[in-house]
Amino acid sequence: MASPVSPLAVPLPELPPLAGVRLAAAEAGIRYKGRTDVVMAELAPGTTVAGVFTSNKCPGAPIDWCRAALKGGKARAVVVNAGNANVFTGKAGQQACTATAAATAKLLGCPAKQVFLASTGVIGEVMPHEKLVAALPGLQGGLSATSWEAAARGIMTTDTFPKASTRVARIGDSEVRITGIAKGSGMIAPDMATMLCFVFTDAKIPADALQAMLRTGVEASFNRTTVDSDTSTSDTVLLFATGQAKHPRVPPGDGANARGRLLADFAAKLNELLLDLALQVIRDGEGARKLVRIDVTGAVTARSAKRVAMAVANSPLVKTAIAGEDANWGRIVMAVGKAGEPADRDKLSIGVGGVWMAKDGAVVPGYDEAPVVAHMKGLELEIAIDLGLGRGKATAWTCDLTHGYIDINGSYRS
Amino acid sequence: MASPVSPLAVPLPELPPLAGVRLAAAEAGIRYKGRTDVVMAELAPGTTVAGVFTSNKCPGAPIDWCRAALKGGKARAVVVNAGNANVFTGKAGQQACTATAAATAKLLGCPAKQVFLASTGVIGEVMPHEKLVAALPGLQGGLSATSWEAAARGIMTTDTFPKASTRVARIGDSEVRITGIAKGSGMIAPDMATMLCFVFTDAKIPADALQAMLRTGVEASFNRTTVDSDTSTSDTVLLFATGQAKHPRVPPGDGANARGRLLADFAAKLNELLLDLALQVIRDGEGARKLVRIDVTGAVTARSAKRVAMAVANSPLVKTAIAGEDANWGRIVMAVGKAGEPADRDKLSIGVGGVWMAKDGAVVPGYDEAPVVAHMKGLELEIAIDLGLGRGKATAWTCDLTHGYIDINGSYRS
Repeated sequence: MASPVSPLAVPLPELPPLAGVRLAAAEAGIRYKGRTDVVMAELAPGTTVAGVFTSNKCPGAPIDWCRAALKGGKARAVVVNAGNANVFTGKAGQQACTATAAATAKLLGCPAKQVFLASTGVIGEVMPHEKLVAALPGLQGGLSATSWEAAARGIMTTDTFPKASTRVARIGDSEVRITGIAKGSGMIAPDMATMLCFVFTDAKIPADALQAMLRTGVEASFNRTTVDSDTSTSDTVLLFATGQAKHPRVPPGDGANARGRLLADFAAKLNELLLDLALQVIRDGEGARKLVRIDVTGAVTARSAKRVAMAVANSPLVKTAIAGEDANWGRIVMAVGKAGEPADRDKLSIGVGGVWMAKDGAVVPGYDEAPVVAHMKGLELEIAIDLGLGRGKATAWTCDLTHGYIDINGSYRS
Repeated sequence: MASPVSPLAVPLPELPPLAGVRLAAAEAGIRYKGRTDVVMAELAPGTTVAGVFTSNKCPGAPIDWCRAALKGGKARAVVVNAGNANVFTGKAGQQACTATAAATAKLLGCPAKQVFLASTGVIGEVMPHEKLVAALPGLQGGLSATSWEAAARGIMTTDTFPKASTRVARIGDSEVRITGIAKGSGMIAPDMATMLCFVFTDAKIPADALQAMLRTGVEASFNRTTVDSDTSTSDTVLLFATGQAKHPRVPPGDGANARGRLLADFAAKLNELLLDLALQVIRDGEGARKLVRIDVTGAVTARSAKRVAMAVANSPLVKTAIAGEDANWGRIVMAVGKAGEPADRDKLSIGVGGVWMAKDGAVVPGYDEAPVVAHMKGLELEIAIDLGLGRGKATAWTCDLTHGYIDINGSYRS
């Protein structure tokens, strides 16, 4: 838990208040001692909500709770704890959710189904939800419009830095704000590093439009990143719109793919923010020393390009080579080939840091190694893969695989 | 390259001569100095052959060569080198294969298409095939029926011990022998550790029956093992039948699924031998300290069970937990859930070393931790997963993920 801060860390941005959101963090003592481990965000009446969740078939109890609550489309609060994921905890896990939501709802005077829940931490230990419930009145008493950093810190597990992002978007002639916080060190590392992300806006947007935009944005951000290929049981992204900002009314049906429509700028800024948060998670990937961007072009379809990019991003051999600062394009060829997507060895090109090292099925004779070597020593790397087959393209992001990953995951629970 | 011998190593079995096979190893100096790096096996006229190859879409030139040669169904020799994989080498790679096969064919007086080739080592460097060709006469001069160990050693790359297995099978009232050698330290580690396996028998078996049995056997052995999920560009299993043993004639159509037929015992012994070799490869997995068997039961189909087993076997978080001797069943739940196969969290059971730790969606109250802790400290571990849905079952094997893997792959090429 006392890992040094990632060399890829970025500073927390300034996070101004966002109308309709108040936050607080507290020490519930669920697992950690001497740090905050529970966070509440109170949302103004009328707040709409969208959510996307893990595709893991063994999701945590809070995922089940949120999926059911999402059907109402309204939210008044979200309560998040770190240290215990409330996953694989059977009926006790469901009861913990019901009790926490009921207690929060009573405090705030709202239906329990408007309270959203997320938990991150160890799998398989019964959640001591009485500790969580006991912390709620203090949380409510401490709610403040300026506690964004406290909230971002209160949800951390193996994270080495707090993660947040904020944007201003235009709806018609009006400005609205979007602010998000996230945790994860490994999107994809279930025990102590499930990925959670909470995004808030003061815009007034119907839940169905919010959901469409969130789904599109997550597909292009979180779903294109990987630390270790292990899809968590608790991954959650929730987007809340408090409706406190004044702006032209968003008509029904205006949502994602809103090119030219009222929400076009909002959707663009939301996408930027989600990608910023997703990359902060990768920057804090367990043991990460390098952030790697993988651009695939020339695939038969965009879907095929994404699969190739993710195969490279998930390859332990590519990731260990990067840790060793070795521009080992042979391993990239291997990873392209194992993706199971259309690929023609003799049309394949591989570049690193803007230098094409391999083209048309063989090494480029006498390519300049010096800039490649220099690029590999940097903190942020770029790999280009052209399949030479079509117009499909996609980008994915990953980090290197280092001794730090083994240290964190080979000894954490004991 | 000077890694200590794997703690999971097994001694080389005694390997008696096999009628119709003579072998030799030599130093061609392709990459390594002071060790053998090229192996020839000469096969008696009339030898039939079967082969299965990598599914990687960017295969090495020798894979292309073997796929074409396999159509003839006959083999007189196999030539293997270590140190250079002849992958992603363009036309030069094809020319290296053509020249090596032609020179071997001339020495042995056979068609070039009866010479099989395999290469393992670095990707993307042009093969100095003149060194390979120059070594051929010496290899031919040194051919011997007793050089099995020399052959097993001559094809090693990051392997820490030579791998071989032998069986005696009955065909009717006659006995035939099957002997195989393999290399790989990581089935699945492209640079220096592609997986190669060569199996020989003195039985007389038509190529189509041989192919059917090999495909079945590989599916239940090599295709159920993983070191790091990275499918090599050079994986090759070749099975040669010299036809030198006397036994009842195998009728056309007798082959795999030969329950009760003439080749039933042969197929069973072949499967045993392939699994033995596959497990020797996992025992020599890069950085491996523990061999892990994963038994999945209760899946909706056998295919689904295999996918779940492989998802667990490939999970970096499960593998690092095992390295840390932590019976972290929560990570196993995660890996089951991410497999994308039908799974019901509340019917799932997880056991380690014969003790069910989790059942019906929650931890087993008061289960005895002591035998589990003791089991995790051992060299050979067993994980049981019951999905509680159907009758599908499958077994997979893997190794743990340790600092040794990072050491070997983060610094190897430089």
